[in-house]
Amino acid sequence: MKIGRFMEMDKIFYGVVEGESVYSIEGDIFSKYHKTDTKRQLKNLKILTPIVITKAVCVGVNYKSHSEEMNHQLPSDPLLFIKPSSAVINPEEEIVRPAQSTRVDYEGELAVVIGKRAKDVDLKDVDDYILGYTCGNDVTARDLQQKDGQWTRAKSFDTFLPFGPFIETDLDPDDLSLRTYLNGKVVQESRTSNLIFKAKELVSFISHCMTLYPGDIIMTGTPSGIGPMGSGDVVEVEIEGIGILRNRVK
Amino acid sequence: MKIGRFMEMDKIFYGVVEGESVYSIEGDIFSKYHKTDTKRQLKNLKILTPIVITKAVCVGVNYKSHSEEMNHQLPSDPLLFIKPSSAVINPEEEIVRPAQSTRVDYEGELAVVIGKRAKDVDLKDVDDYILGYTCGNDVTARDLQQKDGQWTRAKSFDTFLPFGPFIETDLDPDDLSLRTYLNGKVVQESRTSNLIFKAKELVSFISHCMTLYPGDIIMTGTPSGIGPMGSGDVVEVEIEGIGILRNRVK
Repeated sequence: MKIGRFMEMDKIFYGVVEGESVYSIEGDIFSKYHKTDTKRQLKNLKILTPIVITKAVCVGVNYKSHSEEMNHQLPSDPLLFIKPSSAVINPEEEIVRPAQSTRVDYEGELAVVIGKRAKDVDLKDVDDYILGYTCGNDVTARDLQQKDGQWTRAKSFDTFLPFGPFIETDLDPDDLSLRTYLNGKVVQESRTSNLIFKAKELVSFISHCMTLYPGDIIMTGTPSGIGPMGSGDVVEVEIEGIGILRNRVK
Repeated sequence: MKIGRFMEMDKIFYGVVEGESVYSIEGDIFSKYHKTDTKRQLKNLKILTPIVITKAVCVGVNYKSHSEEMNHQLPSDPLLFIKPSSAVINPEEEIVRPAQSTRVDYEGELAVVIGKRAKDVDLKDVDDYILGYTCGNDVTARDLQQKDGQWTRAKSFDTFLPFGPFIETDLDPDDLSLRTYLNGKVVQESRTSNLIFKAKELVSFISHCMTLYPGDIIMTGTPSGIGPMGSGDVVEVEIEGIGILRNRVK
């Protein structure tokens, strides 16, 4: 099932997406809810990020191909960083390149959406804590990442965390095709089977470091092919079974 | 004025602290509020963190003495990392050492509390955006910090962000004495005049990277003298004009 969050006039609501239709949801997507018969046309709605996050825990150097292009060593444990909620933008909204950077890159990624408070969760139980999966773009000021050594500034600017459009709740995350397009041309292409630490392993690992809350997301890392974006560029992250996250660069 | 957040029975409320008394606050501490005549004894209340944060933006290597003890180069810009809200604990609550670390350190710090949405704020205007100052402890799994290179995991475990006890709203942050005590013995001692990037500069700098929201905190960095904590230890961070943040290690 595909769950989205939408705005019509000033009203915000959750809905189930079926083709070009959206059926309103009643209840709380993190506990009990049901799909109603109230139907709208997707094309008439503004699509918001499918959840409001408290934190985004991100994983670096999690595809061998990307570690090679960056000359990073392969980590023995998942390498974590955090993007703040202030960096979030909706699908179709504009990525703004900050004045202090001369190179802002896309990084297409599979994102896990947490459905239930998760603390010290064993790998075998992880599915109970996952609401579903969506697409994310870990936008990065590459020059500042290299200058600082620590990655937080480079990855935390406002507009640097587009994600969405929908949460797919019925999906095996272990072998999905992932593509990033810049102005319609494929620039990143891999499969999640190439992840060093798989999506579910990450949920278990991170839950042993910090409590995850409903609506937190985990960004699982990007494959090779990263590169810069310029004004007017359109960047799309497409993941099999989820859809396409599209943003323009201001 | 000293503002705190308290719990009595199950009721949570803000209050103004005067000596051993707490006067309830009516209104919103981020906009309009006033001190009422309703008075309670501080000793009868549970003291909570003085605000509920959305994010804690932290600054590394911001005292020359600490950069020397860590063999870090002095950064040319403030070196940022983020601690998640899931790491927060109240004054007097227990710091828990995670199983995956063999060395958990205290780091006493001055924390800035943001009072108003701050985006691209000039240094000269920064006071308008600051609610006040409090004490913080940037608890760090030193072994994991060194292993990962990126600092996020080492600093993001649950219970790794005690702060409080109160927000002092009338304080010049530029030359305050800061002391950390371990079991009553001074282990860190410096003045905020030794900060490489001063508290107000940090607010301006960070607001040019990411939007700061009311209740966000900025942890300004720790001086030399960092060291490990063991089970049963009591750690206290004392800053002139604010008070003492005390926590025990489980």
